[in-house]
Amino acid sequence: MTDISRVLSRADENLPSSLDKLFELLRIKSISTDPAFKADVRKAADWLVAYLSSIGFTASVRDTSGHPMVVAHHDGASPNAPNLLFYGHYDVQPVDPIELWENDPFAPAVKTGDSGRKIITGRGTSDDKGQLMTFVEACRAYKETTGALPCRITILFEGEEESGSPSLKPFLKAHADELKADFALVCDTGMWDPETPAIAAGLRGLVGEEIVITAADRDLHSGMFGGAAANPIHILSDILAGLHDATGTVTLPGFYHGVEEVPADIRATWDKLGATTEKFLGEIGLSVPSGEKGRSVLELTWARPTAEVNGIVGGYTGEGFKTVIAAKASAKVSFRLVGKQDPALIRESFRAYVRSKIPADCSVEFHPHGGSPAIQLPYDSVLLNKAKDALSAEWPKPAVIIGMGGSIPIVGDFQKLLGMESLLVGFGLSDDRIHSPNEKYELNSFHKGIRSWVRILQALA
Amino acid sequence: MTDISRVLSRADENLPSSLDKLFELLRIKSISTDPAFKADVRKAADWLVAYLSSIGFTASVRDTSGHPMVVAHHDGASPNAPNLLFYGHYDVQPVDPIELWENDPFAPAVKTGDSGRKIITGRGTSDDKGQLMTFVEACRAYKETTGALPCRITILFEGEEESGSPSLKPFLKAHADELKADFALVCDTGMWDPETPAIAAGLRGLVGEEIVITAADRDLHSGMFGGAAANPIHILSDILAGLHDATGTVTLPGFYHGVEEVPADIRATWDKLGATTEKFLGEIGLSVPSGEKGRSVLELTWARPTAEVNGIVGGYTGEGFKTVIAAKASAKVSFRLVGKQDPALIRESFRAYVRSKIPADCSVEFHPHGGSPAIQLPYDSVLLNKAKDALSAEWPKPAVIIGMGGSIPIVGDFQKLLGMESLLVGFGLSDDRIHSPNEKYELNSFHKGIRSWVRILQALA
Repeated sequence: MTDISRVLSRADENLPSSLDKLFELLRIKSISTDPAFKADVRKAADWLVAYLSSIGFTASVRDTSGHPMVVAHHDGASPNAPNLLFYGHYDVQPVDPIELWENDPFAPAVKTGDSGRKIITGRGTSDDKGQLMTFVEACRAYKETTGALPCRITILFEGEEESGSPSLKPFLKAHADELKADFALVCDTGMWDPETPAIAAGLRGLVGEEIVITAADRDLHSGMFGGAAANPIHILSDILAGLHDATGTVTLPGFYHGVEEVPADIRATWDKLGATTEKFLGEIGLSVPSGEKGRSVLELTWARPTAEVNGIVGGYTGEGFKTVIAAKASAKVSFRLVGKQDPALIRESFRAYVRSKIPADCSVEFHPHGGSPAIQLPYDSVLLNKAKDALSAEWPKPAVIIGMGGSIPIVGDFQKLLGMESLLVGFGLSDDRIHSPNEKYELNSFHKGIRSWVRILQALA
Repeated sequence: MTDISRVLSRADENLPSSLDKLFELLRIKSISTDPAFKADVRKAADWLVAYLSSIGFTASVRDTSGHPMVVAHHDGASPNAPNLLFYGHYDVQPVDPIELWENDPFAPAVKTGDSGRKIITGRGTSDDKGQLMTFVEACRAYKETTGALPCRITILFEGEEESGSPSLKPFLKAHADELKADFALVCDTGMWDPETPAIAAGLRGLVGEEIVITAADRDLHSGMFGGAAANPIHILSDILAGLHDATGTVTLPGFYHGVEEVPADIRATWDKLGATTEKFLGEIGLSVPSGEKGRSVLELTWARPTAEVNGIVGGYTGEGFKTVIAAKASAKVSFRLVGKQDPALIRESFRAYVRSKIPADCSVEFHPHGGSPAIQLPYDSVLLNKAKDALSAEWPKPAVIIGMGGSIPIVGDFQKLLGMESLLVGFGLSDDRIHSPNEKYELNSFHKGIRSWVRILQALA
């Protein structure tokens, strides 16, 4: 029996006790947004420190100005073993409306789900206590089997992820030397489907910008001034309509600089995932892809940049009608970025375009609302492909390298503050109802999640 | 001495007593919007009936479900004399904020205004008690001098003009036979400047329309769906931006059907009024005419049709930023109409245009908000030109035929319900502060206004 087979067997044997430990953690009401649960959040941190210590980590609770961090270290089997930072969060979402829960959210249980598969019910099962425990239990199985861990591991568990992570950046900055690793493992994402594990290799970046256009120095009567006075809603509409051409392409000069095509082999795996336009858009009541023509919905949302108006307001918007020409109109516009698009350049290109459309007697104000570049693990990255092979060995179907349309702030922070790339692997499913009543985690996700990390640790060693 | 000279002299001699009578009416707090003044409103109606009776009219208060109407009749000098309906309103605006008044709003006085000219101060002096009394006092001077009136006169004074005239239409319908005349005289408008009287011959019509565009069946996360899902704000912006071409012309098919050019001689008088782009737009902080190119600001606001967006809203419009793709976006759009533009056709053309821009998987709802055609006295109308000559004889400068960018509902009602055209003559000035503290009416407007009606009555006889 090889080492890895022995570790996997150990993980299987451990499953009942792994579940027991998970349940202990799930019973702690570590709701970070509600001050009433402040002590519970700390209790969860203390529990993690105690448990990590019991399985061989050097672990401690670290105070912040908010909820504490848990940091734990373990040496690797050899000095040359890679150095990994594992991230998860032990805080959970509130449980309101409590009356919609079929089971007590803090009395976890294993049940048979609607799918016929076994599920673990309770708040935090999928987001993120169940997920982080897959890694902890993988480490335990390794340690118990081989007496060591194949890589040098630092664990960072956060208690404020559901509250906007106010302490995270300062903490990363203050402890950069301690936390910096060869790369990070982040376990807070999902599988493609119950049989297909996924690694998120690309996360789109974001530029947010608000524009406020001012025309006359007061609201005007459209009878007295209509036809002569500038209408800021017209100017704004014209600006927004001009952001895309008839093919759905964004028109800003230089916008596609740094955008690379998805490699053909990756695109081929996406095409086989069955996310047809009908299925993807059908779920939200739509059927016609609105973005760039000739690209699949997955490509459009994972690997192509966008310009979207997220809000617009101007003039009279109440009941009935008022024949006013507004003095001001405004819009909030965001750009999702991919590849090497530069947020600063995109913002400047947008502003220059807007300014070029403002009549001489009108004015525009710009209010920036954040900007971060896309994050992209190179598709030929050794890290990525080792993890992919490890996951493919565990699950019925090969792992897919996917993109994510939105951003995950922690990944940007790791890159910016610690110069470290992240591997995003998780075992959640889209029907896990995270943030909602009746959150669940598949028992299979927990069990094979543990086994997956065993394989990944071995592959990376 | 001709009749007209004698009547004018009489009007001059009467001025002190005319002012006394006006002051009696001004002292009555006939604020129609505030139920606390209900009895005062009726008191004003009673006062008018008593006064009109005293000068030879057959006058009565007519109850409505709101404030009463005053109706008064007087025969003409001959059975062939034209039959005129004179309209004014005896209710006034509230006086808040009272602390900004330099004089008690209901204690009228003659003072020297900032211009050095004499003014009558108080609520309702210009809007509309001072104005309606110019006509009453013209009738009195005529009657006292000649023992008769040159035309058959019906007077209609409304007590709900400042409250949206809820009883007016039902009253016109119920008393159509009694009120129908050859045409109406409406005294609720202004002069071009203190030396130049004006007749409003054109009032733009209005079509109001609200559109609500629905894309997905819920608000979406722009990270997950941006680039693939339709964004209703984009669709709406595109629709609104497409309403005008680069020359400011409205693009709807058939939009300009029924629009006629202003005759060159009328346009020439407008050009001489000194309403330069700089002056007209400068007052509201603008300098660049926004509508159709190559037309003056007066032409644009008086005689050209428009499409204006009066309100727009969609997505997140609060503080900060939310990367949402809205399910819905809506706009309120109005069209000002001129000439013979048909409101129903304009609405249908707009709806057809909007529908043509809605993607197959999105939908649009339309909510109509009123529609009325433009009103235009033909520039060669005998009525108009007689009144113009009469006014020109009275004032230092010739009368100008102007347009009005907005609508005056009563004029449309007279046309629609009584088949009657209206002559809009009034002596207000743009600095009369109607609806505001320190309302005033020029003593000259009152005096020469009386003399103007004497001349107009004689010209129309």
